[in-house]
Amino acid sequence: MKIVIKHNQQPAPPPVPEKKFIFRKAGEAYNGPAKPTQNQPAAGSKKPADHVMRLLRFSCEVTEWAREQHRAGKRIGFVPTMGFLHAGHLSLVEEARKQSDVVCLSIFVNPTQFGPNEDLEKYPRDEENDLRLCREEGVDMVFLPRPDGMYAPDASVFVDEEKLQRGLCGSRRPGHFRGVCTVVAKLFNIVQPDVAVFGQKDFQQVAVIRRMVRDLNFPIDIVMAPTMREADGMAMSSRNVYLSPTERENALGVSRALKSLGSVGAGHPAAEPMREQMRAVLEQYGLREDYVAIVDADTLEPVSHVEAGNVALIAAYCGKTRLIDNRIL
Amino acid sequence: MKIVIKHNQQPAPPPVPEKKFIFRKAGEAYNGPAKPTQNQPAAGSKKPADHVMRLLRFSCEVTEWAREQHRAGKRIGFVPTMGFLHAGHLSLVEEARKQSDVVCLSIFVNPTQFGPNEDLEKYPRDEENDLRLCREEGVDMVFLPRPDGMYAPDASVFVDEEKLQRGLCGSRRPGHFRGVCTVVAKLFNIVQPDVAVFGQKDFQQVAVIRRMVRDLNFPIDIVMAPTMREADGMAMSSRNVYLSPTERENALGVSRALKSLGSVGAGHPAAEPMREQMRAVLEQYGLREDYVAIVDADTLEPVSHVEAGNVALIAAYCGKTRLIDNRIL
Repeated sequence: MKIVIKHNQQPAPPPVPEKKFIFRKAGEAYNGPAKPTQNQPAAGSKKPADHVMRLLRFSCEVTEWAREQHRAGKRIGFVPTMGFLHAGHLSLVEEARKQSDVVCLSIFVNPTQFGPNEDLEKYPRDEENDLRLCREEGVDMVFLPRPDGMYAPDASVFVDEEKLQRGLCGSRRPGHFRGVCTVVAKLFNIVQPDVAVFGQKDFQQVAVIRRMVRDLNFPIDIVMAPTMREADGMAMSSRNVYLSPTERENALGVSRALKSLGSVGAGHPAAEPMREQMRAVLEQYGLREDYVAIVDADTLEPVSHVEAGNVALIAAYCGKTRLIDNRIL
Repeated sequence: MKIVIKHNQQPAPPPVPEKKFIFRKAGEAYNGPAKPTQNQPAAGSKKPADHVMRLLRFSCEVTEWAREQHRAGKRIGFVPTMGFLHAGHLSLVEEARKQSDVVCLSIFVNPTQFGPNEDLEKYPRDEENDLRLCREEGVDMVFLPRPDGMYAPDASVFVDEEKLQRGLCGSRRPGHFRGVCTVVAKLFNIVQPDVAVFGQKDFQQVAVIRRMVRDLNFPIDIVMAPTMREADGMAMSSRNVYLSPTERENALGVSRALKSLGSVGAGHPAAEPMREQMRAVLEQYGLREDYVAIVDADTLEPVSHVEAGNVALIAAYCGKTRLIDNRIL
């Protein structure tokens, strides 16, 4: 038996590109990656009239669907959501469709990422409207697992991130990111996406998921899409439905506080006065600070002096509703 | 735009089979699953003379290789190892080849599953011989990452199992199964196998990995292959190389202790006398017990009365070398 070993003689860099992390700012043109040419509608266009949206409830059906797509040479885009869809989610779908041939959106209010005193029970749900929006947006497959369909009663395996989650929402919501990492890892294994799109509004979440993808070698490109905002600048969120009309007016203080920072020049201004400035705006709108931070975009470590690319983040209570928002400086 | 939603009307069971856990006892015939018919040599046969074994060192190359295999409709079998291969590993390769079209074997001495006082530095290595054996066995691709190629310096994401690892080796080796789960999850994501084969000798490891596959929804069949033994019954292990000739004689006490239990009838005998019997054999061979247990095969909980299918497990020190073995009763 004659055997040839093909040693890889090239030490570095590896010949195949690593997974990509793509950050898009609002209005920024997207230039890659080239998606495989298929008999598909033009990138970004809605699906043709004979498009069929599938609704699947069992993870094994979803995985079989994913295998079919891959066998057909198609690239799968994925948008995981907790439902109660709004224009922010739909912008993620649009982004996913630009970068893939078929798009899966999942709807699952994941209990393990809610703390004991959080809003799991009252989290808003509207399945019918969600499906209507998905159809209109040309989603190819919706994964809508049954509430008890995602976790075995004796589930005992979890994915956890130990550095990026130390501050910001992670320190305020113990166990939250363990729940997020675990459910996203599960969804990635079920849906087998080539690219997954997350919203910038949950900036720490995207950072943690990027880290998970890197550290656990998921072969998935992660795209962060810009936060969608109401006409007045308020970040869209399913939780905005909790706000009374007066609270909704006050809630504007969060985005206003971020906007008040203006643009960061080359001067490396000190962070503390900028944080104080944001606090002043929150106070002006009657909002109670949970945190106000300016951090490095990759490590999420607080910075003492600010430079372009740093991220300002706010979590604040408006009545009983906790709102978050952020801005890349 | 006319849109049709295909609701899945069937409540249960799902139409696509879930991943399989296959346990084979020595000598037991294997009857499934049917593998896709390819232009391949007959199941179980070595590869033809023009077979090329690839050696890859970068995870991205491996993932690209896996994608090529899947695009070609091939089923990937996977045998993760720490190298220093022996007949036990080769039996896992043989099992993987029966159940797949192409076999990947990985060699990586994973630092994160060794405790601070364990044998990471002196763990035996023989890369050249390992590759020779893989060639002879018809392995299609060996993944041999560089020592620093698997973990980023600031790695912060880990996979952990919290129930099955409480007893047995898990309680003796804190952090061991976190290291195992994390590296196996990484390898699964890199190699994208359809089936992975593990040896029964590390019974708790297989149970933990099965649990991980279930709880994180890896679309991978897990096969547990029977422990390979020397002529005298001693379980094969890379660590047996640590034993002096005298120690090697004494080490036989581990398998002898397990064998002394004989067969379990329908009488549900009490577990404690059986454990005492194993302890007596260990003592007779001058071995120091680390643990002696009889447990449920799925939960790994100790049983008070023994029935067929329970598992007897031993960990014992022979000099400074820690040996483990087990037997399904």
